[in-house]
Amino acid sequence: MMIVIMRAEATMREKSAVIARAEDFGFKVHLSDGKERTIIGIIGDDRVINRDQIERMPGVERVVPILKPFKLASREFRAEDTTFPLGNHTIGGGNGIVVMAGPCSVESRSQIIETAIACKEAGAHVLRGGAFKPRTSPYAFQGMGEEGLKYLAEAREVTGMPIVTEVMEPALVPLVCEYADILQIGARNMQNYALLHAVGESQYPVLLKRGMSSLIEEWLMCAEYILSHGNTRVMLCERGIRTFETYTRNTFDINAIPVAKHLSHLPVVADPSHATGKWEYVAAAAKASVAAGADGVIIEVHPRPEEAMSDGGQSLKPEKFAKLVTQMKAIAQAVGRDIEA
Amino acid sequence: MMIVIMRAEATMREKSAVIARAEDFGFKVHLSDGKERTIIGIIGDDRVINRDQIERMPGVERVVPILKPFKLASREFRAEDTTFPLGNHTIGGGNGIVVMAGPCSVESRSQIIETAIACKEAGAHVLRGGAFKPRTSPYAFQGMGEEGLKYLAEAREVTGMPIVTEVMEPALVPLVCEYADILQIGARNMQNYALLHAVGESQYPVLLKRGMSSLIEEWLMCAEYILSHGNTRVMLCERGIRTFETYTRNTFDINAIPVAKHLSHLPVVADPSHATGKWEYVAAAAKASVAAGADGVIIEVHPRPEEAMSDGGQSLKPEKFAKLVTQMKAIAQAVGRDIEA
Amino acid sequence: MMIVIMRAEATMREKSAVIARAEDFGFKVHLSDGKERTIIGIIGDDRVINRDQIERMPGVERVVPILKPFKLASREFRAEDTTFPLGNHTIGGGNGIVVMAGPCSVESRSQIIETAIACKEAGAHVLRGGAFKPRTSPYAFQGMGEEGLKYLAEAREVTGMPIVTEVMEPALVPLVCEYADILQIGARNMQNYALLHAVGESQYPVLLKRGMSSLIEEWLMCAEYILSHGNTRVMLCERGIRTFETYTRNTFDINAIPVAKHLSHLPVVADPSHATGKWEYVAAAAKASVAAGADGVIIEVHPRPEEAMSDGGQSLKPEKFAKLVTQMKAIAQAVGRDIEA
Amino acid sequence: MMIVIMRAEATMREKSAVIARAEDFGFKVHLSDGKERTIIGIIGDDRVINRDQIERMPGVERVVPILKPFKLASREFRAEDTTFPLGNHTIGGGNGIVVMAGPCSVESRSQIIETAIACKEAGAHVLRGGAFKPRTSPYAFQGMGEEGLKYLAEAREVTGMPIVTEVMEPALVPLVCEYADILQIGARNMQNYALLHAVGESQYPVLLKRGMSSLIEEWLMCAEYILSHGNTRVMLCERGIRTFETYTRNTFDINAIPVAKHLSHLPVVADPSHATGKWEYVAAAAKASVAAGADGVIIEVHPRPEEAMSDGGQSLKPEKFAKLVTQMKAIAQAVGRDIEA
Repeated sequence: MMIVIMRAEATMREKSAVIARAEDFGFKVHLSDGKERTIIGIIGDDRVINRDQIERMPGVERVVPILKPFKLASREFRAEDTTFPLGNHTIGGGNGIVVMAGPCSVESRSQIIETAIACKEAGAHVLRGGAFKPRTSPYAFQGMGEEGLKYLAEAREVTGMPIVTEVMEPALVPLVCEYADILQIGARNMQNYALLHAVGESQYPVLLKRGMSSLIEEWLMCAEYILSHGNTRVMLCERGIRTFETYTRNTFDINAIPVAKHLSHLPVVADPSHATGKWEYVAAAAKASVAAGADGVIIEVHPRPEEAMSDGGQSLKPEKFAKLVTQMKAIAQAVGRDIEA
Repeated sequence: MMIVIMRAEATMREKSAVIARAEDFGFKVHLSDGKERTIIGIIGDDRVINRDQIERMPGVERVVPILKPFKLASREFRAEDTTFPLGNHTIGGGNGIVVMAGPCSVESRSQIIETAIACKEAGAHVLRGGAFKPRTSPYAFQGMGEEGLKYLAEAREVTGMPIVTEVMEPALVPLVCEYADILQIGARNMQNYALLHAVGESQYPVLLKRGMSSLIEEWLMCAEYILSHGNTRVMLCERGIRTFETYTRNTFDINAIPVAKHLSHLPVVADPSHATGKWEYVAAAAKASVAAGADGVIIEVHPRPEEAMSDGGQSLKPEKFAKLVTQMKAIAQAVGRDIEA
Repeated sequence: MMIVIMRAEATMREKSAVIARAEDFGFKVHLSDGKERTIIGIIGDDRVINRDQIERMPGVERVVPILKPFKLASREFRAEDTTFPLGNHTIGGGNGIVVMAGPCSVESRSQIIETAIACKEAGAHVLRGGAFKPRTSPYAFQGMGEEGLKYLAEAREVTGMPIVTEVMEPALVPLVCEYADILQIGARNMQNYALLHAVGESQYPVLLKRGMSSLIEEWLMCAEYILSHGNTRVMLCERGIRTFETYTRNTFDINAIPVAKHLSHLPVVADPSHATGKWEYVAAAAKASVAAGADGVIIEVHPRPEEAMSDGGQSLKPEKFAKLVTQMKAIAQAVGRDIEA
Repeated sequence: MMIVIMRAEATMREKSAVIARAEDFGFKVHLSDGKERTIIGIIGDDRVINRDQIERMPGVERVVPILKPFKLASREFRAEDTTFPLGNHTIGGGNGIVVMAGPCSVESRSQIIETAIACKEAGAHVLRGGAFKPRTSPYAFQGMGEEGLKYLAEAREVTGMPIVTEVMEPALVPLVCEYADILQIGARNMQNYALLHAVGESQYPVLLKRGMSSLIEEWLMCAEYILSHGNTRVMLCERGIRTFETYTRNTFDINAIPVAKHLSHLPVVADPSHATGKWEYVAAAAKASVAAGADGVIIEVHPRPEEAMSDGGQSLKPEKFAKLVTQMKAIAQAVGRDIEA
């Protein structure tokens, strides 16, 4: 379903050509002839017709799509919230809020196990930690790789928490699946379609981070890529977008939380660590996320941030994290939800 | 205090010229000679030296300012929170949260009085309403002008709530001061320096909206303009910034709330109505504001939004607003604050 | 003319209410009932109906406006290019390109006269120079005021070049008109509607800078404000927009040049000095402007940039400017235009 | 080399800890004690020290890096322009400008051969065409895959033009290398590090598109990834960035052309088709690119844009393209360069 706006000076012949083209595709057509513009309504599923082609026909000013481009990810396709278990907790559905925490990178066996225990005690439900790290510089620490995955699995043994970790290339999806419980798609890879295909096929739960400059609609289209492989366990993760403001590392698009929940049935997770980039502001952003309706939060925690090999500047110490969980729980209850022990 | 980074190929003569210039201004100078770059530290108040001039000297790569450009607005100048009364309530200081509400525009005597009563009953402390309206189109409703101010004053009579209303040009400051209690500087006028001067001189409390594309630092510099006239009653209002995301009218920079409170002692108010632009998302954004530490919120309320002459799309009906105040109160208490009756 | 898209679940009653409302305004209505959405076309001048009100009616998903919101500024209103004289040269119309040059600020009598002579010799047609300066900091140099205007007038005497200078508040329009030939509206004041009104009434030629975060459409709406006062001598000036990129002071939206010329009949001027903010890149941006179809360029020139009281970092020395005029002339001729002596 | 700015209230102990840490890394340290701040200069290669760690130490306000994070890509590493042959033409070095043209997607054998011949006749030197297409929607045409590569190779046979085509995943690099001459990294994959590694290893010339929201510095860091594999044949391609302006598909950052050439020795190519997204504005943007100093341009050409399976809206017809090459050639000559036949 789309609307074609013809230029003021479009000829009858041009209008007829647009109508004929739409009818060739089997669509029904409605014509509204105004003094200043003629409008042609094309009734049918415009996911199969190429809007660009119509827009390029002579006499056409522009084409307005009426339907959202995503389907499986939309509330219209599925009205009730999608929920699924992550370890002993359930994400989505308006009750419990899932807390994910851990270091940016796995740096050693002892570091990840120490952090995991501290996070678990503070109230976390899922352990995060990067083994393969996307780094701006080729000269920076790139993660421990498979060794890091092994330590994550050990930390799971010790704490019982499921593991979420980033996978950066299709060829590594099987390896990461051997160790992890949840696959994370990083912001830089949101539109890495080969990777979306691979994690879709894996049938593992996916935490899909929003790209730094991606529209909410594009983010949902990437979820659609995963869903179209029959993998319905997708979480949307808002982690801040890039704007002109540089005081914080990113601008946390808090609006995206209620908007994503309005447009989609998928659970929405907030990442206040990346969304602010400075530990001083993480607590405020985390509390705001819960108040705004997030189904989960993911927070970077490091026992000694000043020694962290990446993202130390935005990591909380375990004590600060523990205090934050208590505050988030109070807010969760104030909005009729909870953070379960 | 600033740091001058010399180009790798800068000559001794060029370095000496920079040093001589700084010393002419009475500054102390420190030199660090590295293999790849020479760095010259200039110790003194760089608010009186022109950074641009130094940057333009031969051999200079760039100049890094060390101190913030604002002074009176900074936490360093004044460590404790600024507080001041708005009617019977106090803004700032970490306890009560002030709720401002009312229609976008004053449309008639009965409309503003009806709305004021409803807002008051729902828990508002301050009445908002525009008499002079900045409109994108010269053909759109431009506000009722002085007549609107009179109706606002009547609504204050009826409800006891102080009035906040926008003033758009220096020449109208005296007129607006005759009727209003708080002067609002709109986002489009944040850097209208003649207007900042006039409201600074007025000594009335000012609600300073952040410009659509202004850095937090620039926003504080505009507060500095007002403070420099001896007017210390300035509230900073975050109302959303312009980004690439168009699903919402603006992107609510929730990070700006804790950042502004960190950098400045001034009270911070959130405007979830403009920050989202769609009534469906106002409640989530308002709740997030309280959780993030805002000292006040300002919300558009209209008894019949579908008849509003401006901003109907983002206005709440009184019942929805009343429900929201209850929710915000619960969150305020969860973070150790309150919304007083 | 607008299109109302009803939600999938909208009732007959809701659809009828929208239709009734449109008909009350005297509009003709077309209905397209699709399986997934109903669309209501409203035929008539939607500049008089409030889109927001329709959007807020029950059952409405969104409203798509069909016509541009500006009229007098549009190519549809006036197909041929607007042209008018600036001193001995004509701006607009596809032939000569007007070169405006001069310092950011008037700093002294000798500085402006020296610069004016150098600019004239290098090939400039109009002299720029600020007497009232919008500065981010209240502690920075704010311009010489009326004294500066007098020196500008003297420089005109000496060189014969007309003067363009910024006016920052409505109350000063008469004073500035006493001395200047062209009024400049700065980027920060693009939406200062009281000021647009005042310069509209003045009937002086206006150079309207695009706001730092303004859409092309909003920029044209501000031109519309001026045009609606019967002042048809408006030049649109692209001076860079604010984006995430910080290496340059602004991002030069070169696309805006052909777009503005496509949508409007008004002359378009480029400001490569502000658009880059660094003198090293001004020449490249200036040459690109001419190649992209600008009708004029405005360039900051200072005899000793390292002593400039503002914008020294982006000012060219007279020799560099002279060389640039020669290069721009070659490009102008390559695209079938010229820069006259 | 970096500068550590200590907070006003930092203790001697905190300052000493920072100094001790830097000295542990073998760096030399300079201390500047000011009344308002203490500054510690750390002299040494800060590519090996983690700035984040220092920033997180107690008492530290912020850390300012002095050196650029890229090395192999920088002008400091290599002062003269990098040049290399693409077929019979050379890119880089300030003389000839290379013209790349062809359809967005390969759609059929006849389409690509017909287009290639038309482009060649119009003056193109390199043939572009996508066989693997990154598409926002999983339901859209995803390219012809290997079949498309074969047709591209046939078109090369016919015209003698080398082929540039996008590769989207590391596993497909060998396949694409079998057919193509130049590998394109698309904007969405700019930070797909596994892919950068693979094309680096391939030793094929690479056209590296700038990410939609990437800083110029990040773009150069991605070039650094490729260069660090010993592959020196990298072209930087500016294709527009995402901003708040939506009238055009992207905002063409024309400033990025002289900036990239200033910071780096690598050739810079402009993509006016994506940078505008509308065929009406492609010619203006292409001409501006040449005037601003681009070493090459890449332009989408389709014989029947209204039938194109992707990007028809921004494709030029062969006649328009031929006319544009003539205009670009005139501008190239005006700036002392040429477009060779």
